[in-house]
Amino acid sequence: MAQIIKINVPVSNEYDVYIGSGMRFSTHLLDFCRGIGSRFLILTDDNVYSLYGDALLSLMKKEGLDVKMMSLGEGEHSKTRECKEYLENEMLSQGFGRDTAVIALGGGVVLDLGGFLASTYCRGVPVIYLPTTFLAMVDASIGGKTGVNTTFGKNMIGSFSHPKAVFIDVDTLETLSDEEYFGGFIEVIKHMLLKGGEGYKNVSQSAKALHGRDLSFLTTLIAENCAFKRDIVVEDELESGVRATLNLGHTVGHAIELISEHNIGHGAAVALGIIAEAKMAEYAGIMKGQCFLEIETLLSATLKELSFDVSGVTYLQLRDALVLDKKSRALKPRFALLKSIGVPFIYDVNFTVELEEKFIKSGILYLLEGFKNPC
Amino acid sequence: MAQIIKINVPVSNEYDVYIGSGMRFSTHLLDFCRGIGSRFLILTDDNVYSLYGDALLSLMKKEGLDVKMMSLGEGEHSKTRECKEYLENEMLSQGFGRDTAVIALGGGVVLDLGGFLASTYCRGVPVIYLPTTFLAMVDASIGGKTGVNTTFGKNMIGSFSHPKAVFIDVDTLETLSDEEYFGGFIEVIKHMLLKGGEGYKNVSQSAKALHGRDLSFLTTLIAENCAFKRDIVVEDELESGVRATLNLGHTVGHAIELISEHNIGHGAAVALGIIAEAKMAEYAGIMKGQCFLEIETLLSATLKELSFDVSGVTYLQLRDALVLDKKSRALKPRFALLKSIGVPFIYDVNFTVELEEKFIKSGILYLLEGFKNPC
Repeated sequence: MAQIIKINVPVSNEYDVYIGSGMRFSTHLLDFCRGIGSRFLILTDDNVYSLYGDALLSLMKKEGLDVKMMSLGEGEHSKTRECKEYLENEMLSQGFGRDTAVIALGGGVVLDLGGFLASTYCRGVPVIYLPTTFLAMVDASIGGKTGVNTTFGKNMIGSFSHPKAVFIDVDTLETLSDEEYFGGFIEVIKHMLLKGGEGYKNVSQSAKALHGRDLSFLTTLIAENCAFKRDIVVEDELESGVRATLNLGHTVGHAIELISEHNIGHGAAVALGIIAEAKMAEYAGIMKGQCFLEIETLLSATLKELSFDVSGVTYLQLRDALVLDKKSRALKPRFALLKSIGVPFIYDVNFTVELEEKFIKSGILYLLEGFKNPC
Repeated sequence: MAQIIKINVPVSNEYDVYIGSGMRFSTHLLDFCRGIGSRFLILTDDNVYSLYGDALLSLMKKEGLDVKMMSLGEGEHSKTRECKEYLENEMLSQGFGRDTAVIALGGGVVLDLGGFLASTYCRGVPVIYLPTTFLAMVDASIGGKTGVNTTFGKNMIGSFSHPKAVFIDVDTLETLSDEEYFGGFIEVIKHMLLKGGEGYKNVSQSAKALHGRDLSFLTTLIAENCAFKRDIVVEDELESGVRATLNLGHTVGHAIELISEHNIGHGAAVALGIIAEAKMAEYAGIMKGQCFLEIETLLSATLKELSFDVSGVTYLQLRDALVLDKKSRALKPRFALLKSIGVPFIYDVNFTVELEEKFIKSGILYLLEGFKNPC
């Protein structure tokens, strides 16, 4: 019997995350489905559909479940209100009622959209997450943030609502492109920069197991990351305090994604964001230079595995995009910063801060100068 | 000092409902606003805008609050996903962030849409309800149901989310048309049919005070109705049980609204729905004939004040529209019925039931035959 780890998430609507090999077609998953709905919609994207969607659909049908599948175009471009409305109309016209449960099978886009769709369909039907990317496993699985993008910014419309359960099948990590795999690892680094201690050391020294996609190593790593995020989310479910620290690198990161029209992936954008924001923190005297260098070195190693191109991005473009962020107040961007590894910067009682314009500018220029040659 | 009644609603996000004369420009309202946001959006409709919107906007500006107003076209036609998206884009382009609070000033449409808009804007910003119609005061004020209509049915997309507070200014009842005023009274009758006892007796004997729009009488009546609905909602916030009894008359009522493209108002449609469903209950042996007559007589008296025309509606049209209801299971409509006045019909542990086709048909035909001449 393969190793299965269960992480309990005691939020307002408590649920469990199961991590292990073969979870996506386990008896446990099928039994769980039977307990929460009488009709099922598998939501996936075109890529995951061909890899895993058909197999799950066939299995559920064979088990006598009333199930249909809908597939999205791949990528962030599907994460819109228009796409949500299209899916709602399809579901309504096919007579899906309150007895429906949604099964979101895919990466962050499918989980975020599937979760949001479920949270407002008939004022809320249950949803199960089956994340198939590294990023979705360690990020979207925990915390109940759902939503869609708008031209005015990422995730601007959405809800806080939790899945009924998450089944993480680590086997799906084997089919990920390097781009997706190492992109997901950036969120792991982000978590461990916030956590510090042994977790951080292990991650910064785990190049071999990481590159070999060792499933036992990855199962433990994912569980550790889910547990870390769980502890923060349980303390501050609606992000009125400490949860905002998880936005490390995301103010600049989201702006880069937006400017590049999502041609730069979330992982690379966040890595660049962490570097730029750490540089701002260094300029502002919040972080020591040595700490900045350690962070930059660690992230640069993973950035080498990712493709991105910021050579066409200008300072003004990036500066303008910074305010298109939910954390902005009175049109001023706010940043979740580190003081040192394992120590988030807290000013007064605020977990995000404004920075003087000169520090913002210097951080951005450092980034655009240093990373203008695509790797 | 005029009488002000406070109703506490101890749901998942506890809030208070204040009922009295002058509440819409009270110091209490302004102080409350200051406590929940730093930017404000008043959402209203074109009719309420001219009556009360400008005055509230001016007052808030004079008090130094950062406030803007957006106005919808009047009526159910504005309660759509497209309209929500339009408002979101306006808000996003004007830089409204997480520090925004929405103030929904109007009837059920404005409250339902404003509540839904707020619940997903930046994953949720606070909303205050200022209901200006009788119906919204006794219905939308309590219970946290928000949502929009689709061509596939009413309120199919929405959320359960509560306002931070409700300020009911009974003075606004004076400007309502008879159509709106008596339409709202239908929901009062519905509540009291479910409650029975003294409350029911008072309502069925209150014609004079009702027609005179006696504000003291109305303040008490609204408080009584809010408290009645509150008790049910607190017991069953997400409508998995007893809350479904509040759907009395609504399965047929919603179908009538849908078929008439909302030319028949909610009040009249629900009154017709209660009569048709009571007739079904009588045919099915659930309700005694005498009880049906009492209900029909009571509702017919108020229906005389309302305009509606079901002469063009066919049995098949109405039967087809019945399944476009969130309560339907496996494409079969379900009804919340009364056994007698004050006694909801419960079958096994179900507060809504399926009925044999012949009873559904007879109830609909009775309605279409008896009420085909518009009053």
